[in-house]
Amino acid sequence: MPKPILTLTLNPSVDISYPLNHLELDTVNRVSTTRKTAGGKGLNVARVIAQLGQKVAGSGFLGGDLGNFIAKKLSGDNIENWFMQISGETRNCIAILHDDGKQTEILESGPEITATEADDFLDHLEKYLDQIDLMTISGSLPKGLPTDFYSQLIELADRHGVQTLLDSSGEPLLKSLTSLRRPYLIKPNQDEIAQIAGQKIDDLDQLKKILLENPLLSSIPWVVVSLGKDGAMAKAGMDLFYAKIPKIDAVNPVGSGDSTVAGLAYALNRKADVDEVLKTAMTTGILNTLNAKTGCIDASLFENYYSQIVIEKIN
Amino acid sequence: MPKPILTLTLNPSVDISYPLNHLELDTVNRVSTTRKTAGGKGLNVARVIAQLGQKVAGSGFLGGDLGNFIAKKLSGDNIENWFMQISGETRNCIAILHDDGKQTEILESGPEITATEADDFLDHLEKYLDQIDLMTISGSLPKGLPTDFYSQLIELADRHGVQTLLDSSGEPLLKSLTSLRRPYLIKPNQDEIAQIAGQKIDDLDQLKKILLENPLLSSIPWVVVSLGKDGAMAKAGMDLFYAKIPKIDAVNPVGSGDSTVAGLAYALNRKADVDEVLKTAMTTGILNTLNAKTGCIDASLFENYYSQIVIEKIN
Repeated sequence: MPKPILTLTLNPSVDISYPLNHLELDTVNRVSTTRKTAGGKGLNVARVIAQLGQKVAGSGFLGGDLGNFIAKKLSGDNIENWFMQISGETRNCIAILHDDGKQTEILESGPEITATEADDFLDHLEKYLDQIDLMTISGSLPKGLPTDFYSQLIELADRHGVQTLLDSSGEPLLKSLTSLRRPYLIKPNQDEIAQIAGQKIDDLDQLKKILLENPLLSSIPWVVVSLGKDGAMAKAGMDLFYAKIPKIDAVNPVGSGDSTVAGLAYALNRKADVDEVLKTAMTTGILNTLNAKTGCIDASLFENYYSQIVIEKIN
Repeated sequence: MPKPILTLTLNPSVDISYPLNHLELDTVNRVSTTRKTAGGKGLNVARVIAQLGQKVAGSGFLGGDLGNFIAKKLSGDNIENWFMQISGETRNCIAILHDDGKQTEILESGPEITATEADDFLDHLEKYLDQIDLMTISGSLPKGLPTDFYSQLIELADRHGVQTLLDSSGEPLLKSLTSLRRPYLIKPNQDEIAQIAGQKIDDLDQLKKILLENPLLSSIPWVVVSLGKDGAMAKAGMDLFYAKIPKIDAVNPVGSGDSTVAGLAYALNRKADVDEVLKTAMTTGILNTLNAKTGCIDASLFENYYSQIVIEKIN
């Protein structure tokens, strides 16, 4: 039986969504239905992995009463709680859904992590690393942490033989590509690839060339670039693949990238071959877009979509 | 030494305020400073009473992690926790402060109180009634409670010799005026007086006449009608008074009515005479408007403003 997968969410949130026919500014708006969920990209990853029937744990920082709220939600979602308590208070993120499809969001920055808490987290995490083979890291860094904090986590995991899947952007992503110990997989979008390569990307041929030749990318075993409705291009080792997906009627695309990471983690944790890994990831990505709830899939539809994915080797 | 005062807040909230230079619709707005406080009119009353140096307790319904958040804030504010736990989750209320003085609020309706919880609350409250002489009730009723629930509480308090100050509106206020046992004091605004009297109020002479002659009001020992910057008109027994206040530069008028209730409760609980009661209430109301924090006063300024209030008997 495969070991549990660990997903990291360093800056989780209690997400609140307010459906309003009309948002009236400068006055009082009353809402009678409110949804409060455990949010953060890594928690989406964890939920989808749990829905695939795989043991999964979540870690990161939780604080205060909103931290307790998330802890309770984890157990309801079959996610083991490996979070560390901090002195700050876990944040809220607000989404107001109003006026025929408008989505106005207010994102709190969240608590600042102290230097002591950052150090403690490395020790905290190390206790769990011998129980797992694979760990995902998703999202942005909370305030107070150095931009190479993900690199520190990846290095620690590597020393324990744990592979890391990193889905981040900006400085933390760039730092991880230039460290001595690197992530096993990254999932940049086309903008992030352009930033890494330092050049615009106009077509798939250019993307192909960058994936094969850019030294920052060629040193990473797995690079998966989502192309939205056009599927994905992936580098596994020195081989390039194109994953073609069927046409789908998306209900809610939010969290689809996280769900793709969940599929990648699930298949890689089972030592699946390249074909299976890519097909699994495309399928979980699709299943998320078919679901109204972010970071949720209906696993009973898995086989149906899995069989429709076509993987081509393109180098 | 006077007994503690009890303030009721049946539908408290964790109030969140988001200061934003500009609220951009249909996109992501990031906030770095966020204030989360224990909200609800009765909790404003309690805070001001505590700041006057008087022992005070708060009661009502608390549930879930936001309920725990409020419980912690109470102890930080020197308010004794006499709240009852419920199965539902305490609500959030959001205020977005944006674009040069605009205030866009989103108010959740809050948890529904079950019939059993409503019954239990009467028993819960009764345990405390022999420890107090005076209780305030502020704000609207949570979902699930009958519109005469405040009347039931007032009757229960009355049977234990506890006087009740009611600051509510609509059906719950009207019901309390037609029950057999009535509140000792109500604090309607001019709109509410008009609703009770079933007629528009154009000037102070008309207000005077209604206060003296309307049978629903003449049966209530104390009726205090705030006139904003013009002070207040009050009926105490069969006597009418006008309270004149000095000109002030208001910083934050929100919570000023609650602070006035705090002053009324404080003075009545000390068996002060009519003059003192009205002067105290006007002073706490003013001190709240001078404070940036809602439901907060600087008690060291008390004497200064108290000495500037003029009370005239006008009948």
